[in-house]
Amino acid sequence: MNGAESLVTTLLAGGIDVCFANPGTSEMHFVAALDRIRGVRCVLGLFEGVVTGAADGYARMAERPAATLLHCGPGLANGLANLHNARRANVPMVNIVGDQASYHRPLDAPLTADTEDWARGVSGWVRTTRTAAEVGSDAAEAIFAARTPPGAIATLILPSDVCWSAGGVPGMPRAAPPPARIAAPAIEDIARLLRRNEPVVILLAGTALRAAALADAHRIAAASGARLLAPLSNRRIERGQGRYPIERIVHSVDHAVAQLQGTRHLVLIGATPAVTFFAYPGKPGRPYPPETEIHCLAGPGDDLPAALADLADALDAPLLAGPSDLPRPVAALGAITAEAVAQTLAALLPENAIVVDESVSFGRPFYPRLQAAAPHDWLQLTGGAIGDGLPMATGAAIGAPGRRVVTLQADGSAMYTLQALWTQAREALDVTTVLLSNRKYQILFGELASVGAAAGPAASSLFDLGNPGIDWVHLARSLGVEAARAEDMERFGHAFRQANGGPGPSLIELVI
Amino acid sequence: MNGAESLVTTLLAGGIDVCFANPGTSEMHFVAALDRIRGVRCVLGLFEGVVTGAADGYARMAERPAATLLHCGPGLANGLANLHNARRANVPMVNIVGDQASYHRPLDAPLTADTEDWARGVSGWVRTTRTAAEVGSDAAEAIFAARTPPGAIATLILPSDVCWSAGGVPGMPRAAPPPARIAAPAIEDIARLLRRNEPVVILLAGTALRAAALADAHRIAAASGARLLAPLSNRRIERGQGRYPIERIVHSVDHAVAQLQGTRHLVLIGATPAVTFFAYPGKPGRPYPPETEIHCLAGPGDDLPAALADLADALDAPLLAGPSDLPRPVAALGAITAEAVAQTLAALLPENAIVVDESVSFGRPFYPRLQAAAPHDWLQLTGGAIGDGLPMATGAAIGAPGRRVVTLQADGSAMYTLQALWTQAREALDVTTVLLSNRKYQILFGELASVGAAAGPAASSLFDLGNPGIDWVHLARSLGVEAARAEDMERFGHAFRQANGGPGPSLIELVI
Repeated sequence: MNGAESLVTTLLAGGIDVCFANPGTSEMHFVAALDRIRGVRCVLGLFEGVVTGAADGYARMAERPAATLLHCGPGLANGLANLHNARRANVPMVNIVGDQASYHRPLDAPLTADTEDWARGVSGWVRTTRTAAEVGSDAAEAIFAARTPPGAIATLILPSDVCWSAGGVPGMPRAAPPPARIAAPAIEDIARLLRRNEPVVILLAGTALRAAALADAHRIAAASGARLLAPLSNRRIERGQGRYPIERIVHSVDHAVAQLQGTRHLVLIGATPAVTFFAYPGKPGRPYPPETEIHCLAGPGDDLPAALADLADALDAPLLAGPSDLPRPVAALGAITAEAVAQTLAALLPENAIVVDESVSFGRPFYPRLQAAAPHDWLQLTGGAIGDGLPMATGAAIGAPGRRVVTLQADGSAMYTLQALWTQAREALDVTTVLLSNRKYQILFGELASVGAAAGPAASSLFDLGNPGIDWVHLARSLGVEAARAEDMERFGHAFRQANGGPGPSLIELVI
Repeated sequence: MNGAESLVTTLLAGGIDVCFANPGTSEMHFVAALDRIRGVRCVLGLFEGVVTGAADGYARMAERPAATLLHCGPGLANGLANLHNARRANVPMVNIVGDQASYHRPLDAPLTADTEDWARGVSGWVRTTRTAAEVGSDAAEAIFAARTPPGAIATLILPSDVCWSAGGVPGMPRAAPPPARIAAPAIEDIARLLRRNEPVVILLAGTALRAAALADAHRIAAASGARLLAPLSNRRIERGQGRYPIERIVHSVDHAVAQLQGTRHLVLIGATPAVTFFAYPGKPGRPYPPETEIHCLAGPGDDLPAALADLADALDAPLLAGPSDLPRPVAALGAITAEAVAQTLAALLPENAIVVDESVSFGRPFYPRLQAAAPHDWLQLTGGAIGDGLPMATGAAIGAPGRRVVTLQADGSAMYTLQALWTQAREALDVTTVLLSNRKYQILFGELASVGAAAGPAASSLFDLGNPGIDWVHLARSLGVEAARAEDMERFGHAFRQANGGPGPSLIELVI
């Protein structure tokens, strides 16, 4: 058994049976091992950003890590942006990155690069394996690191000689510990705080945003008067009709400051203290008042649903009758506006859909309005590195087969990783992409204005995607994905119904 | 004057007037400054790999650096692969990378990343500027570093507060030193070696591959019996009819070993000792015999044309009558084969064209056969990170206006950075892309065989781009580039003539 074979065996033993991949020469022995030892589903991405973004979406829905297979150095580099996003959501992932043979590396062949240094910034665990005999045990440790709550990105760098050499020994991945239960005294401390009737915001993140946890959070809020909020961007929120809503901190600094005005205590349950996306001259970096007291009840790796249930019980919070759902609207007609699109999505979203939201500026009303939609999961770009939507949808569809994925996708961001459409076609994934084609980096016009500048020729050119206009219908079809264009709400409603009704992927270019 | 304005002023003072850009929020002040201080041509790329690859191609032809403008952290990461390629060719470039405001960085906002660490692996010079007053002087140093022969990648990281703060002082970029002249005793040493009539290979790289330098190299070869070779991948070779040919070291280890068999001395003129692209079990990492003596006459930053002229003179090498050109062939007819495509390219390549070669496996005959074409420059992927061809062609067209760029582009590699086609359309660049559509990662089938494995289901799937087949004609048109498909040589010849005849970009999908 060579090192590569011990790796495949170890991955399977660790419950990893999906590998998003874009291999190169230094990974040939691993590919050969995947042919000899069956059981890993290999999903090809035509660019590494697709590979890592798909592994992110997969893990968010499957609740376990996928492997990625990335080419040495620059291959990893191409995947860094979406690894950055995944890291911000504590998503579990095991990256297998090939590298030059250990004895060849000092010769500085053209593809030799800073693989390990590049990996470090996005990984909770990194190792370069030194011998074939250690591949299995290193892989087992990588899997353990990835699966340890809340989840981490583990990057295993394998020089090609450790893959091809004999002496591989399958590793035995240890079972990851369960999320830690928060001790009663800590729960009681927060319960006491909540009984003091001071203005408290409870900031919920991670698994605290699942339906049952949110129900307990609402018990707490009802019993104590505390306010519930989530960060702007989240790994996964269970929401829609029959589930308790959760408001998010907004993007605009001024609005976020207004939103958190008067806060005296910030209780963190799986969240970190809120921070603005960027700094702006004369504006605060924290949206909450400076005198706010921070109380961390539970970190992202703790058992957040249990912490919420325990806290509700400690408060003797009564069970609630259930959320007061807004009525589901009917599909909108007429001209395309953000509100109209939100209304149609709320009306027509399939039951149990997975919404991947990379709608950026146009999509501001989508999140609040879709609380009235059928129950669904809401996945977001968590690290701000655009180009995660199409890949994440690809992986989510593989991680949760049988559910429709609806991607709410800004055009500028879509162009980063449009290769994902091809993988959606190849794997016949049930993904509907709503492509919001405004032909500009709209958010940057706002950002420019907020630094006090008017758009001159440089800005107007650098933020403009309209020259030439991108024909998303033909672009999608050229990559094997059925597509339609909608220039009014009737057409959008029709196309959205049709896309969600059939199997496989399709794209709707929404001209906005 | 704020920091950003001092930056624009300094770039212009340093002769940098083209900026390939994909800005984000942290770069808004720089964009605003580009609007206030005119003179920099801003070229938008819809993905950072396009931006950095274009800056590479620009510098290769314009012989001076462009600036890039990259978004903080992940924006830089998306550009790393083509920075890696550019670094391997010693291409000058000044990267302007935005970053979180210095006081905001410790708050770890979502987009905060390891910007400086990521930059280090691809940059000869990296600095994060600390105050607005230092932006100008830091930029001046970056320009000096980039322009110092042979050229380097300089990365200037600018926290947004140093850009927006008052107190900017324009920097005064020092003139870069000229390439160093090799001293006479060193020339004489090599002349003595060459007179010993032992088997010598002279390995030429960088500016030694320009037409005049190659003519002197051929004088040396004729007078001494030494063999001339170039590395597999090069920044720029001036070649074609009326110019002296230069053979390259081949990709296959076995063939490269055969090519260099019997070598006793390796004389380096701008080159580093040859190394195989990857290691393979039981094969050497250096293609030349282990007992070969290495003699470094001149490094990449030295005046290589002068070194060759001086060496030729030291040998009293007679002037030559001129190269014996192969006759220019006529365009091929019939079925599409690599040889037939090479023949048609040799027949029809426009005078003074710039060939960007990312043809990978299919294109092996292109380089030798195109020696019979009209004079042209030959630019290659120098770091092995695929996805450089379309961006490099984009930048080369901007760096050498009035010349036709012909991109010989493998399909798998093209998919990495296909967004470059949009920039070609936007800027109406005279680029003809010959898209070699074999619908697979053909090179990997060879690599798999060379590790002794047969392609099973995993390999067959991971190397296959044919399910679904990519429709390059519609893909190119959807991004604004005219396109045609050729399934025989007649059609290819016709389409190639037509593409080169008109202004602006077009793409020919060559079904191979």
